[in-house]
Amino acid sequence: MTRNTQVPADLTAPPITTLLARFVARHPSRGWSEAVEREAHRTFYNWLGCAIGAAQHEAADAAVAAVQLLQPAPQASVLGRREQVDMASAALVNGITSHTFDFDDTHLKTIIHPAGPVASAVLALAEHRGSSGREVLDALVLGIDVACRIGNVMYPDHYDRGWHITGSTGMLGAAAGCARLLGLDEAQTAMAIGIAASQPVGLREQFGTMTKPFHPGGAARAGLMSALLASQGFTASPRALEAPRGFVQVASDKRAWNEATDELGERFEISFNTYKPFACGIVIHPSIDACVQLRGQGVTPDQVKHIELRVHSLVLELTGKKAPKDGLQGKFSVYHGCAVGLIHGRAGEEEFSDAVVTDPRVVALRDKVQAAVDDSIAEAAVHVTAVLLDGRRVEVRVEDAIGSLRNPLSDAQLEAKFQALVVPVLGEAKARDITAACASLASLPDVRALTALCRPQ
Amino acid sequence: MTRNTQVPADLTAPPITTLLARFVARHPSRGWSEAVEREAHRTFYNWLGCAIGAAQHEAADAAVAAVQLLQPAPQASVLGRREQVDMASAALVNGITSHTFDFDDTHLKTIIHPAGPVASAVLALAEHRGSSGREVLDALVLGIDVACRIGNVMYPDHYDRGWHITGSTGMLGAAAGCARLLGLDEAQTAMAIGIAASQPVGLREQFGTMTKPFHPGGAARAGLMSALLASQGFTASPRALEAPRGFVQVASDKRAWNEATDELGERFEISFNTYKPFACGIVIHPSIDACVQLRGQGVTPDQVKHIELRVHSLVLELTGKKAPKDGLQGKFSVYHGCAVGLIHGRAGEEEFSDAVVTDPRVVALRDKVQAAVDDSIAEAAVHVTAVLLDGRRVEVRVEDAIGSLRNPLSDAQLEAKFQALVVPVLGEAKARDITAACASLASLPDVRALTALCRPQ
Repeated sequence: MTRNTQVPADLTAPPITTLLARFVARHPSRGWSEAVEREAHRTFYNWLGCAIGAAQHEAADAAVAAVQLLQPAPQASVLGRREQVDMASAALVNGITSHTFDFDDTHLKTIIHPAGPVASAVLALAEHRGSSGREVLDALVLGIDVACRIGNVMYPDHYDRGWHITGSTGMLGAAAGCARLLGLDEAQTAMAIGIAASQPVGLREQFGTMTKPFHPGGAARAGLMSALLASQGFTASPRALEAPRGFVQVASDKRAWNEATDELGERFEISFNTYKPFACGIVIHPSIDACVQLRGQGVTPDQVKHIELRVHSLVLELTGKKAPKDGLQGKFSVYHGCAVGLIHGRAGEEEFSDAVVTDPRVVALRDKVQAAVDDSIAEAAVHVTAVLLDGRRVEVRVEDAIGSLRNPLSDAQLEAKFQALVVPVLGEAKARDITAACASLASLPDVRALTALCRPQ
Repeated sequence: MTRNTQVPADLTAPPITTLLARFVARHPSRGWSEAVEREAHRTFYNWLGCAIGAAQHEAADAAVAAVQLLQPAPQASVLGRREQVDMASAALVNGITSHTFDFDDTHLKTIIHPAGPVASAVLALAEHRGSSGREVLDALVLGIDVACRIGNVMYPDHYDRGWHITGSTGMLGAAAGCARLLGLDEAQTAMAIGIAASQPVGLREQFGTMTKPFHPGGAARAGLMSALLASQGFTASPRALEAPRGFVQVASDKRAWNEATDELGERFEISFNTYKPFACGIVIHPSIDACVQLRGQGVTPDQVKHIELRVHSLVLELTGKKAPKDGLQGKFSVYHGCAVGLIHGRAGEEEFSDAVVTDPRVVALRDKVQAAVDDSIAEAAVHVTAVLLDGRRVEVRVEDAIGSLRNPLSDAQLEAKFQALVVPVLGEAKARDITAACASLASLPDVRALTALCRPQ
């Protein structure tokens, strides 16, 4: 809870604001490997599913009601809803919904959820302009690179201080992405990033409230407006990030400047992005993964005498709730996670609903799960043994849970996640059509063909 | 340039978010002294003059052009211009213009310019709602109290870190003022302040660019939107200000919690607000004041052999430019300030124009000003001697310059300042009518009668 170190002002910081701006303005379209291009598609698709999935959440209702008070022009879509609002408000609301289920992407090096701020801003602007899918992908890759690189410069000190790093770097990524989409030159792009630098959004104290998902939404909005201001000649300091009273030095004692520009244009931070398979904290993921694997090996709930977990102590500290009473409590119960993994073979937002958490089948199996602490097991690992009524023991050991960087979700798993989020909101036909549009996003002439699909009939 | 101290998280902070919210929601209308009420009128009037005065500045042009890209509904006026835009954009632009000339109010205890964020948000919302002048004054006094009290909690550490404290406390005051205007209850008001707490706006690195005045504008916008969100049921932490990962502890090592609530409802921070008589840094003010006094005593430029200043060393460090070449450089020249004080009897924005700075009469007199450092003289004081061609010596000593807390601008001086700002933009008749409307603001049934006056024909 205390800061790591106290450091004096650094008067010799390199000019990272202008270096990043030049990169964003000049880097060639699709100037990266096939692997980066694939990750850009996966990042966009995962973000879109999360945003649509939470479209009917009460946080979305409240946010839409608030922006409607501005009587906005119908410039861009609220994904998964009928409303169209001005592009800045669309960036705000879509940023909120994409993070509402805590089910979005994670740049594991910094625990930034980068798509929320960047994609929400970029798509809203692109929809209003009728930009192509190629332009959106370019803006997304470059915007995420800026946000995550500044995250790398400051993490962990910046996060440890209490900043919700997704929103307090996201405005930079959103500004950069929107500047790219607008075709700003490098000087104007530096202004866009500079204006955004004055607007970090996010405190960790807000976790557990609607203001947590507000952070990526607010960052998306701030970044989009910063780019629009820069496009009209508004000025900022060209050293807004690195100066002694610039953003990084004001908000962090760690200032690893090299992270901003090392291998710039060669290494892309979107390569380190991951997608959650389960709609809960990352610490339960190995246990759920193991139980899904048990199910895959033919173990059924009625065969089970009990299930033994050996886990790192942190798992029980954070998620040791024995008898969760509702969906939210279910997210803090490794026992519940194991039960739905074995019964349903998944743990999406639906498996953390009140109905599933109180389902007698789930409760009965949950009560058969026993957990023992074994600190020889890593935080990200688990050893699970299913002891069956016929005396058999089926064991599964997970070292790298599904969804981690070394064991990423397959495209098919990502699509299943998307379907589970989107079908309840838009139906199967639209979910299928959106999936197809996202798969060919790079060749989509106008993203309005995609955003139209994201509105209910 | 380094932080004062490093302090651990404070787990015992009092619940200032909810205490301030209760105060804002429950304090009676006009529940303060005649002196506070008078200062509220003066604060509003001074802010309005600054906003109108800068309406044609290129920063205003760029900001208006950017918000027009949102195709905003005509809900509220851009003061001093024809455009009407949505209320959130009006809050943004009016906040920008009110600080563009660096000529707005100053809460000297914290160097916050409080009206920029608070009045800009409150008037835009009030115009859209058709609120009364009384409601605006109540919201202004209470909103400024919240912003400046949080400033008192954190100043100077928060400012020393590099935060532009006007925009990084202003969002709280704007949220509080708008919550009051909306009639939110104390729980919703706490949410409004809480949502705003995640959105500080402002880095000191931006000084010298358009993003400096963007800070109060961005804070106004953020606070207004926070109140609208809270009115629609959006939630935040009720400990967003004081928790270990809440705003104050994240953004400051100084946490004088008592400042948030000492004499709450009895002492009002707006009582400590001051108004600049001269459109330049405060350090030159005593010298200009003295030269205006010389003029009042009948000294004319053609009588002067030379003018001798005895000043604190800081005056020459900050404003020692001997031969300024343009208006901006003129703001950093005590010599120029003295010349316009004696010639024009004032030093408003016009006296820092390129034309006046290069006017041969001004240049000739400026060259006759001599300054000597005398550190027995306080920073806020000056000793000026006019040595005349006929051998006479006329001396003026200023201890508390005009515009300071101990020697505030008179109402007549404030009106003269207002006229100088507003007449060039709106003409004499409107300037007079607006002055009359502001004087009777407390009894104005609908502020749209005032804002209509602030648009050119």
